[in-house]
Amino acid sequence: MEAKLQELKNRLMEVDDLNNAVALLSWDQTTYMPPGGATARGRQMATLQRIGHEKFTDAAIGKLLDDLRPYEESLPYDSDDASLIRVTRRAYEKLIRLPSDFVAEMSNHAALSYQVWTEARPANDFNKVLSHLERTLDMSRKMADYFPGYSHIADPLIDFSDDGMKAESVREVFGQLRQQLVPLVRAITAQEPADSSCLSLHYPENQQLDFGLEVIKQYGYDFNRGRQDKTHHPFMTKFSLGDVRITTRVNEHDLGDALFSTLHEAGHGMYEQGINMAYEGTPLAGGTSAGVHESQSRLWENIVGRSRGFWEYYYPRLQSIFPEQLGKVSLDKFYRAINKVQRSLIRVDADEVTYNLHVMIRFDLELELLEGKLEIRDLPEAWDERYETDLGIHAPDNRDGVLQDVHWYGGLIGGAFQGYTLGNILSGLYYAQALKAHPEIPSEIGQGKFDTLHTWMRDNIYTHGSKFTADELTEKVTGGPLRIEPYIDYLKTKYGELYSL
Amino acid sequence: MEAKLQELKNRLMEVDDLNNAVALLSWDQTTYMPPGGATARGRQMATLQRIGHEKFTDAAIGKLLDDLRPYEESLPYDSDDASLIRVTRRAYEKLIRLPSDFVAEMSNHAALSYQVWTEARPANDFNKVLSHLERTLDMSRKMADYFPGYSHIADPLIDFSDDGMKAESVREVFGQLRQQLVPLVRAITAQEPADSSCLSLHYPENQQLDFGLEVIKQYGYDFNRGRQDKTHHPFMTKFSLGDVRITTRVNEHDLGDALFSTLHEAGHGMYEQGINMAYEGTPLAGGTSAGVHESQSRLWENIVGRSRGFWEYYYPRLQSIFPEQLGKVSLDKFYRAINKVQRSLIRVDADEVTYNLHVMIRFDLELELLEGKLEIRDLPEAWDERYETDLGIHAPDNRDGVLQDVHWYGGLIGGAFQGYTLGNILSGLYYAQALKAHPEIPSEIGQGKFDTLHTWMRDNIYTHGSKFTADELTEKVTGGPLRIEPYIDYLKTKYGELYSL
Repeated sequence: MEAKLQELKNRLMEVDDLNNAVALLSWDQTTYMPPGGATARGRQMATLQRIGHEKFTDAAIGKLLDDLRPYEESLPYDSDDASLIRVTRRAYEKLIRLPSDFVAEMSNHAALSYQVWTEARPANDFNKVLSHLERTLDMSRKMADYFPGYSHIADPLIDFSDDGMKAESVREVFGQLRQQLVPLVRAITAQEPADSSCLSLHYPENQQLDFGLEVIKQYGYDFNRGRQDKTHHPFMTKFSLGDVRITTRVNEHDLGDALFSTLHEAGHGMYEQGINMAYEGTPLAGGTSAGVHESQSRLWENIVGRSRGFWEYYYPRLQSIFPEQLGKVSLDKFYRAINKVQRSLIRVDADEVTYNLHVMIRFDLELELLEGKLEIRDLPEAWDERYETDLGIHAPDNRDGVLQDVHWYGGLIGGAFQGYTLGNILSGLYYAQALKAHPEIPSEIGQGKFDTLHTWMRDNIYTHGSKFTADELTEKVTGGPLRIEPYIDYLKTKYGELYSL
Repeated sequence: MEAKLQELKNRLMEVDDLNNAVALLSWDQTTYMPPGGATARGRQMATLQRIGHEKFTDAAIGKLLDDLRPYEESLPYDSDDASLIRVTRRAYEKLIRLPSDFVAEMSNHAALSYQVWTEARPANDFNKVLSHLERTLDMSRKMADYFPGYSHIADPLIDFSDDGMKAESVREVFGQLRQQLVPLVRAITAQEPADSSCLSLHYPENQQLDFGLEVIKQYGYDFNRGRQDKTHHPFMTKFSLGDVRITTRVNEHDLGDALFSTLHEAGHGMYEQGINMAYEGTPLAGGTSAGVHESQSRLWENIVGRSRGFWEYYYPRLQSIFPEQLGKVSLDKFYRAINKVQRSLIRVDADEVTYNLHVMIRFDLELELLEGKLEIRDLPEAWDERYETDLGIHAPDNRDGVLQDVHWYGGLIGGAFQGYTLGNILSGLYYAQALKAHPEIPSEIGQGKFDTLHTWMRDNIYTHGSKFTADELTEKVTGGPLRIEPYIDYLKTKYGELYSL
């Protein structure tokens, strides 16, 4: 058994090496690659992904998993070995359904589509990506069809990022949430909007970046095992548990853009950096779901990074870096500015209260596209209509409308967005649980100390990697299933105070 | 036949994709990777190299090469298809001798050894790399032994970088060259040394980098298909014919360091960028030998970049960038400074005249190590002795002695250095040939125009990639074999004028 387990680990390590090389090829594509590299890069990523897929779906792995079943069953469910075998089997059973050529084709298409999007967005030219996006939709549907027996065509795609969730269960949770959010948004936006003009002054790039790095270092993001670079669209990526990188983008006339994206991606990064190093090279060595991942990015971006306590500590420092811009702006005014609730156009810039409405629009449109009720060529119009209906605003152009997010242009339609809102809900749930264990956390945040919170998250969430599914983890951490109440309470308390509701 | 050729090309493309991913993993390791990534990175490179080696040495490729032999023989020697089959066969017959596990082991060891060197050099600590270097020597000898029947153990290793050359033939050429160089160095160093103090003033990094980029853009290095980053040791690397990158390093108190390394690496880069795009993904898509590659880096660094004509054009521009440092330094004084001949410690900083003596020391030490006449632990002492004997100087420490060059610490001892001097010789030979065709080249250089020279090199050297061996190429371009006279003439003319010999 030991030899078989070792052989399984060796094979998984090889696959992991290939996947990590793909991740690096992709990171480089978005950070430093010159334009001339695009065609070959798409092919290279596709080739490695195909080889990785072939090696992971090799019948020898299936055989090893079968042979190891008695050993697995002899172990406690949450032992490392049993978990490795179980989680590998779950992934194996999913991936053997996808032909290697299809995986390579998707990867190749994703790279090209992404490249076209990086040109189409600044050019405000949806037509440029139209045919690519049509192909993405075709391929996404084809992908779902490799998993027959679904209730909704989006189910297999959702399952890839949020294992266990389905279109129906997401709709159910989103419905509950919407019921709470809509009146809250209405009550807030009926009031005088906060003055956030102080955030749009000129803030030089290097100082913005330095301040962000200073904060996440204090959070506990480990620069010995990470770094930050600039990209069109911020993201976190990992090449090993010892090399977990984040990216950001800077707008010299929007202080929030780089800063909050840095805090956000650092949350993702700390999750990966906190995984038990013994899992290196195995399917356990990654965050367990998009939702749980997002719970960490949103925790560190919003619950911590937009809290009053955090800024009681950091605002004097920020003022000292930008004395001309902020010297005469009070903490109270700044705090209101960074938490301004408004019906806005851009998801990643949206405040905590309206953010989930942006996500729900995308989730619903994804379902309509996959169902065949909506054509890609009609997507910009459908997008604008939903923004009109749900948020009462209309994008002046596609750049800030349907072209704003990379996800669909990165090669897959379906399963891309629900994790953001599940993550918000989980951030509230997990944070409430951390507070039960350590009520001192908020006052520590007010002193720029994040150790207690970081350690609690690491010990309860991060260290497990993918050992538990999102549902199992939530059950283990909170003693119950996913529920929206703590997150709603958090929002109502914070914004109730801010807007005297 | 067409189907077989296409299958061969597909298989070669897959190998090329893997090799290019390894190149990116390696580039990233030296540019941006955080220290925590080192262990996994070594393993990742080893895994991909092993898979690439397995796929290239697959018996199916041998079979295809056999099947394609009649087709190859029906074609002209220099046709693309015949060349592809011939060059692939040559590489195949070499590589099938190396077990895949050995290749992976070497790659893994190379990555670790490199990482240790990056720490050992600044710490001036040879002991830190000692055991790694011993292992490198063992593995280098083992590698040679996979090619039994050699006259000298270094022959197979030399053959890997300079196909067709042997220890004996290199010694022969080096002997001829030494005979010419030693009296030249003696005559020059008997004179008052040039005053190069103007180069050691403070030159801010960004302006240095910008000027270098400006020059190589004018040379014709294509930034749409390349970029420059900073590393410990400058190099050129390629991820596809559309993505050929260079690196440099900056010393704010040595104007020559970044500038001439940039011109040097740009020469390598232009060679790769100039290869016929139709060869993409095949073994033809790379420079043909270390020597020919170096002929291009040295051409653009020295023959062009340290010529009087070049600086007649560029010096006013450089003065305008650094008015405080160079405003009062005459062109003549500057020209003498950048061509100062001296018995110095660092190969990459050495002048054109003494440079080859540095190379010969390394070449001889490599042979002694491989022959077993010299132990790694005695290498620093042997190094110092040879510098004493050949150049009359002694490094104050290992940092600027035996630790100065990355090559041995990058995983192989043997075949690493002869290409530099072969390249110098070839740079003189090819440049003389270009002048025969276009006597206007020197005056164009004096006007900052490089098109004629670049185009001649591209059409006569670059475009062929690896279609011809170095010897074939030299024969084709010059109508005869490698000879040192044009290079010696170039040196004697230039330095004869500079030092009124």
